[in-house]
Amino acid sequence: MYERYGFEPLETPAFENIETLLGKYGEEGNKLIFKILKRGEHEASGAADLALRYDLTVPLARVVAQYQNELPKFFKRYQIQPVWRADRPARGRFREFYQCDIDAIGSTSLVVEAELLGAVSEVMTTLGFSDFVVRLNHRGVLTALLEAAGVAGDKHGEALVALDKLDKIGADGVAKELASRGIDSGAASTALSFFSVVEEASHATLARLKSVLGDHAAVRDLESIVALAESTPAAGRIRIDPSLARGLSYYTGAIMEVAVPDLAGSLGGGGRYDNLIGMFLGRDVPACGFSLGLERIIVVMTERNMFPASIAHGAVDVMVSIWNDDTRADAIALAGELRRGGLRVDVYPEVEKLGKQFKYAAGRQARFVAILGDDERARGEVAIKDLVTGHQESIARAGAGDYIAGRLKT
Amino acid sequence: MYERYGFEPLETPAFENIETLLGKYGEEGNKLIFKILKRGEHEASGAADLALRYDLTVPLARVVAQYQNELPKFFKRYQIQPVWRADRPARGRFREFYQCDIDAIGSTSLVVEAELLGAVSEVMTTLGFSDFVVRLNHRGVLTALLEAAGVAGDKHGEALVALDKLDKIGADGVAKELASRGIDSGAASTALSFFSVVEEASHATLARLKSVLGDHAAVRDLESIVALAESTPAAGRIRIDPSLARGLSYYTGAIMEVAVPDLAGSLGGGGRYDNLIGMFLGRDVPACGFSLGLERIIVVMTERNMFPASIAHGAVDVMVSIWNDDTRADAIALAGELRRGGLRVDVYPEVEKLGKQFKYAAGRQARFVAILGDDERARGEVAIKDLVTGHQESIARAGAGDYIAGRLKT
Repeated sequence: MYERYGFEPLETPAFENIETLLGKYGEEGNKLIFKILKRGEHEASGAADLALRYDLTVPLARVVAQYQNELPKFFKRYQIQPVWRADRPARGRFREFYQCDIDAIGSTSLVVEAELLGAVSEVMTTLGFSDFVVRLNHRGVLTALLEAAGVAGDKHGEALVALDKLDKIGADGVAKELASRGIDSGAASTALSFFSVVEEASHATLARLKSVLGDHAAVRDLESIVALAESTPAAGRIRIDPSLARGLSYYTGAIMEVAVPDLAGSLGGGGRYDNLIGMFLGRDVPACGFSLGLERIIVVMTERNMFPASIAHGAVDVMVSIWNDDTRADAIALAGELRRGGLRVDVYPEVEKLGKQFKYAAGRQARFVAILGDDERARGEVAIKDLVTGHQESIARAGAGDYIAGRLKT
Repeated sequence: MYERYGFEPLETPAFENIETLLGKYGEEGNKLIFKILKRGEHEASGAADLALRYDLTVPLARVVAQYQNELPKFFKRYQIQPVWRADRPARGRFREFYQCDIDAIGSTSLVVEAELLGAVSEVMTTLGFSDFVVRLNHRGVLTALLEAAGVAGDKHGEALVALDKLDKIGADGVAKELASRGIDSGAASTALSFFSVVEEASHATLARLKSVLGDHAAVRDLESIVALAESTPAAGRIRIDPSLARGLSYYTGAIMEVAVPDLAGSLGGGGRYDNLIGMFLGRDVPACGFSLGLERIIVVMTERNMFPASIAHGAVDVMVSIWNDDTRADAIALAGELRRGGLRVDVYPEVEKLGKQFKYAAGRQARFVAILGDDERARGEVAIKDLVTGHQESIARAGAGDYIAGRLKT
């Protein structure tokens, strides 16, 4: 799906120079980075010079800075690789997990945001999700709302950390935390009223934002993104959510998340980060991306029983049994004939009672067992037993592959 | 292909507990393992508790020991994942590289060796290799030949290290090294005559081995493997090579390598290792496996120009250009329509001169550009320009996807 949206595949090494990663994810992030000990004579120093990928965005920024002269003006890449965080494991959260990222580098056009949201929504729909929501906000809206509420500029960061917990601790909890962080109670209560999410259509939220902020560039951006996304599979999915904050470290514009009702947190998120590449390159390059979390998607799809039955099948279509020592080579040859048609074929390795071989085949969820007994071999046939129906019949050997392939479809 | 041979997919984490890996690869291997620093309060200790996968075999042995009660009696798994070695990079040799492994656990039957060689040979043939050779030897043959030559038992390891260099330093070089390692010159010269490779058919080598070793179990094993493999795609590929030694640390039976003339070393190798799992489990479990090195295969295929042209194509079939600000949403909608048919579609993100947009499309190796001008839109059409032939025509919009898909096949 990412390729259909014009993204090219990219893989980067599992580890980066440690300086590339440090300082990009905030203080908490730094602590969660797996660091690799120097090798050889320097090992005894106990110092680290490499570190495992913490996400796919910072390695991309490093690649863009390093290969700037070889990349197209607009560079669109997708990357599906594991990342590592020394986090405490929880439901859908592991120390090694896969991110599925798309990023578009080089353009400030909001067509980029619309296309990203379209791609991610089409992935979700194709996987079978019908109840996901795309939450959309803008870094500029967050700042403007805090200003309008009267929160002092140097308290914006602290206010957002508190307001980001609205989902989890409710308005009263956030009010207390705002007070404890030294934010004026009048400003705090105004900010809370701005950020409290009302379930409403995007145009209603946009109107509300305009009534507070007037004709603001960030609100116009949101309006355009929603309008452009109406021509994509994200149509009808987007909910403008002024309380969406995300990790604020490198985002500069639109921020977005995909969520479903039955999983706290999100299945993925992203946003615009126009300054990150500049940290490596010395000049800013606009960029916007989105990352889906594979394991969280798998957790929800598993709990909802969304995987098609075909995926739950065993790894073997047919197991060729072994009649006796002398027919081993012929059993191997039969397996080769069946594989030619694309079947997944196992050969029982040892000469044992057929009952034992059948039991093993059933345990591996093989659908069929092929038997090359003396009679069958004499007639140029092979006996095929269907382990699901129990039906067994002798088939001309040359037609055995087609017979099994046909029965597999039933 | 591995699935057709009845192997199930397995992935293991990038890192293992450091004790799992240390001591499994010999002294040299230990030095090449990437070690991960402890986290949190223990980071300052400079000690490592985790290490990156060095191969896929030891992690498999750990998995088999850990999940022994949940795995089938014969466990056949394939695993295609990166491994890491702190080695000096060279042609086809990287610090991070992919191994493509198949292993069959639980059986001592030589059907296992034959099926492994069949699978690997079919992979090679399917990739387009017509000149590969499967070198085959047996740990028991190596030991028996050294004994027959009169090399003292405690010198076998040293003798094999020297004899393993026959390819690189020739018979004279090996003779010198054997002498420097304190091996009696008469024994050394006899051993050299046994191990010197003569290009000959397997049955001739087997006859020669029998004349030296008599009726030896390891020779009978090789004979059976060759006979069984004649029923697989390895037929005619196998050359018994008494000088093949490989890393001897964990092999116990047959050892094998796949090689092509234009790459020193091998494209992959494997063998039987009936004791490795016992190092984790406390009781031995028979096992045999083979590993193909992805990057070395890619190096040779690239140098030989073996990749089909279709792989060299750009990542985009058609780029939708942007006419003006007002038609951005319509351009995005057209991209969605074209994607529905499976095309890979990029949307130019910005409103710029068409010439610039065409230049970018050509740079991305897009085959077609779609133009939604005012005239085309008024007629419900879209102009499609073929960047290869230069031909441009207007097509009814509803048929544009089929038109492009049809032209792509030409």
